[in-house]
Amino acid sequence: MRILDVITKKRDGFMHTDLEIHHFIEAYTKDEIPDYQMAAWLMAIFLKGMSIEETAALTMAMAKSGNMIDLSAIPGVKVDKHSTGGVADTTTLVLAPLVAAAGVPVAKMSGRGLGFTGGTIDKLEAIAGFKTTLSQDEFIRILQKHNVAIIGQSADIAPADGKIYALRDVTATIESIPLIASSIMSKKIAAGADKILLDVKVGNGAFMKNVKDAITLAETMVHIGQLVGRETRAVLSSMDEPLGQAIGNSLEVEEAIAILDGRGEKSLRHVCLVLGAQMLNMAGIESDVNVGYKILCELITNKTALNKFKEFIAAQGGNVDIVGNGKKLPQAKIKTRVVCTDEGFIQKIDAGQLGYCAMRLGAGREYKGQKIDLSAGIMLEQRVGDFVKKGQLLCTIHGNDETRIKEVQELLANAITIGNDYIPKTKLILGIIDQRGFQAT
Amino acid sequence: MRILDVITKKRDGFMHTDLEIHHFIEAYTKDEIPDYQMAAWLMAIFLKGMSIEETAALTMAMAKSGNMIDLSAIPGVKVDKHSTGGVADTTTLVLAPLVAAAGVPVAKMSGRGLGFTGGTIDKLEAIAGFKTTLSQDEFIRILQKHNVAIIGQSADIAPADGKIYALRDVTATIESIPLIASSIMSKKIAAGADKILLDVKVGNGAFMKNVKDAITLAETMVHIGQLVGRETRAVLSSMDEPLGQAIGNSLEVEEAIAILDGRGEKSLRHVCLVLGAQMLNMAGIESDVNVGYKILCELITNKTALNKFKEFIAAQGGNVDIVGNGKKLPQAKIKTRVVCTDEGFIQKIDAGQLGYCAMRLGAGREYKGQKIDLSAGIMLEQRVGDFVKKGQLLCTIHGNDETRIKEVQELLANAITIGNDYIPKTKLILGIIDQRGFQAT
Repeated sequence: MRILDVITKKRDGFMHTDLEIHHFIEAYTKDEIPDYQMAAWLMAIFLKGMSIEETAALTMAMAKSGNMIDLSAIPGVKVDKHSTGGVADTTTLVLAPLVAAAGVPVAKMSGRGLGFTGGTIDKLEAIAGFKTTLSQDEFIRILQKHNVAIIGQSADIAPADGKIYALRDVTATIESIPLIASSIMSKKIAAGADKILLDVKVGNGAFMKNVKDAITLAETMVHIGQLVGRETRAVLSSMDEPLGQAIGNSLEVEEAIAILDGRGEKSLRHVCLVLGAQMLNMAGIESDVNVGYKILCELITNKTALNKFKEFIAAQGGNVDIVGNGKKLPQAKIKTRVVCTDEGFIQKIDAGQLGYCAMRLGAGREYKGQKIDLSAGIMLEQRVGDFVKKGQLLCTIHGNDETRIKEVQELLANAITIGNDYIPKTKLILGIIDQRGFQAT
Repeated sequence: MRILDVITKKRDGFMHTDLEIHHFIEAYTKDEIPDYQMAAWLMAIFLKGMSIEETAALTMAMAKSGNMIDLSAIPGVKVDKHSTGGVADTTTLVLAPLVAAAGVPVAKMSGRGLGFTGGTIDKLEAIAGFKTTLSQDEFIRILQKHNVAIIGQSADIAPADGKIYALRDVTATIESIPLIASSIMSKKIAAGADKILLDVKVGNGAFMKNVKDAITLAETMVHIGQLVGRETRAVLSSMDEPLGQAIGNSLEVEEAIAILDGRGEKSLRHVCLVLGAQMLNMAGIESDVNVGYKILCELITNKTALNKFKEFIAAQGGNVDIVGNGKKLPQAKIKTRVVCTDEGFIQKIDAGQLGYCAMRLGAGREYKGQKIDLSAGIMLEQRVGDFVKKGQLLCTIHGNDETRIKEVQELLANAITIGNDYIPKTKLILGIIDQRGFQAT
């Protein structure tokens, strides 16, 4: 097989065989294919597309490029949850202990973030002592005992994806449905999940800006799961305004605790419960998602979920005192209030812009490997549709750098639009995508 | 300007500004842009195309990436001729002395070949002593005295084109009209031509396989010339069967001498005269191309052209004794006759396959930098439409490697088709393309 023939085939709009895709990925992972040939192929894929069969083959080729985790030692159906990423989206920290408390084994590998805020692993590192690196044995042992463990994704999980993603980032080949779908699915499959629940975010604070593209991405991933024998389902959720109140690492840990304690932002709570009910359903624990939703509510009310969270933190060496005492988490030196200069209804809260502000404060990474400021971020005090008066608090900036805080202050004022007309609350859950297709909710 | 934004713009089908193109090419030439970003951009150009204005900007950016030759010291209109390449196409060796004898200054930079046979520079190196490397001063001095000089293209002529061409070759981005057109035109413009005459070959032995694509390529180059102020014209000529009898370096030098001596293959002679008449017209020497054609015939008949060839060879240090004594050119050790096994009319002579055979014998390069065998090649004894009898000579293989000769013998038998029906002679000149468009001839 000549690499040039493979590139030519895709360039001319033909379909690849499984063998061609596996060979290309394997050779690239071994550095036998130079970046410029992969770049030409990726651009051809971007512009000519890939069939679902080709996308599934690409997914499996990338999954098999490294270590394939075996979770068969853990009893029960392992359902992994993945969010395509949004602002103030701390669902994993809530869901992991919550569904574990309901009996779903949560064996999760998470990544570090690039962009608005840190990833789940960064957030967990805000908890003093918490170990995100465990040996395979420790990971399994904790899981067997506590039914939940979260570790950082090792470099040996789908290494082809890591290498290709880095190249896509610098060759304008990111926004391609087959490339995005295979990238996400390859990591989930290599990490050993039996079933996969996707939280596909749509809106100006998400990667997918419109519902049509988000549905196509979700359907592609569900279809890949079907073709490779790992049941996959997707929840389509809105990301026009931030999901929770907290944007930042320490702040989001504190908010997750609030939700598990029965307090906190209702939107974040609702999305967590919807996702959790789907996980219970997929794990075969509760077939009726409405009943599942209620089961999870009860686990919050009776503190079982919060206790599971403490148990999880302690098992991985973290300081449990953060529960009930947020001051034990990294704190920013400067807290600056942003208040309303107008009276009216909140028309729009630009999630993308708020995420950008949090990143500028140090909560997220502008480039790979950048050190992030775990204490920095934004606490949002209003939501779209709220009526606000002049001087009322809109949000609080948490930071350690006065210049950056000043810069962000101006940006935030423009990111929150106030007007005379009442705007109804945003619909949070837009639908569910499973093997039968899209069902609006 | 962010390189990623430029790639994205083309990927999404938008037009580049002159500035974007110049910046991209300049930075790539200086190694400030990695190959993988250029590869992604090239694939996007391949699939999304380029407007004529973008193509002209790309041409000028590549031309200006190195030295721009100034030929103003040479009096008269310098008309450069370029062939898109074919089999048994030794027109440059005939035309250079021929039109120089008619008063057109021929200041030519030629390349080495890749593929079927060597380029003009390789062919000239079959002449003992011939110097293809001259200083700029020597080049100008010879031109002023003899009106003709041919040197190898220096690495400093359109270096961006050289670097991009090498990358296109390994990223499946060769066959793109804007990329081919700008590559050819950038070198001609940097080499200092006032006007450019293109010999665009079409057929199975040429790069362009069909007339439609060949016309589009020719029109694109003519249009580029118009936009950058260098009048360009194209002759569309057939390359379904080899143009001359000789395929190979020594053999083609000998054939060029035959044409200049009033002998040789009529097809090659006719194409040379048509191209020469166009050059006389463009140089302002003879406005009527039919009259120009006759002037050139007369220069052959009265030996002026052949004497100019000797003068040219001598001026660049070559052994003039090759004229009249072909044995002074490198000779192959083995000469193998390929004869007819059937009786009938020749239906087809596959120029592409004959070119491949010549390359296998060592007459051309399979990879850049490969040493070629100047003595190797094929002498074709029949043309399409000829009636041949069993045992009659089809062609002679000139080679030095018995295994290769054996391999080629079999291929050649299949490359020449014999049948019962008479096939009319191929139309050689299909048309002329100038600023008014295509005119069939």
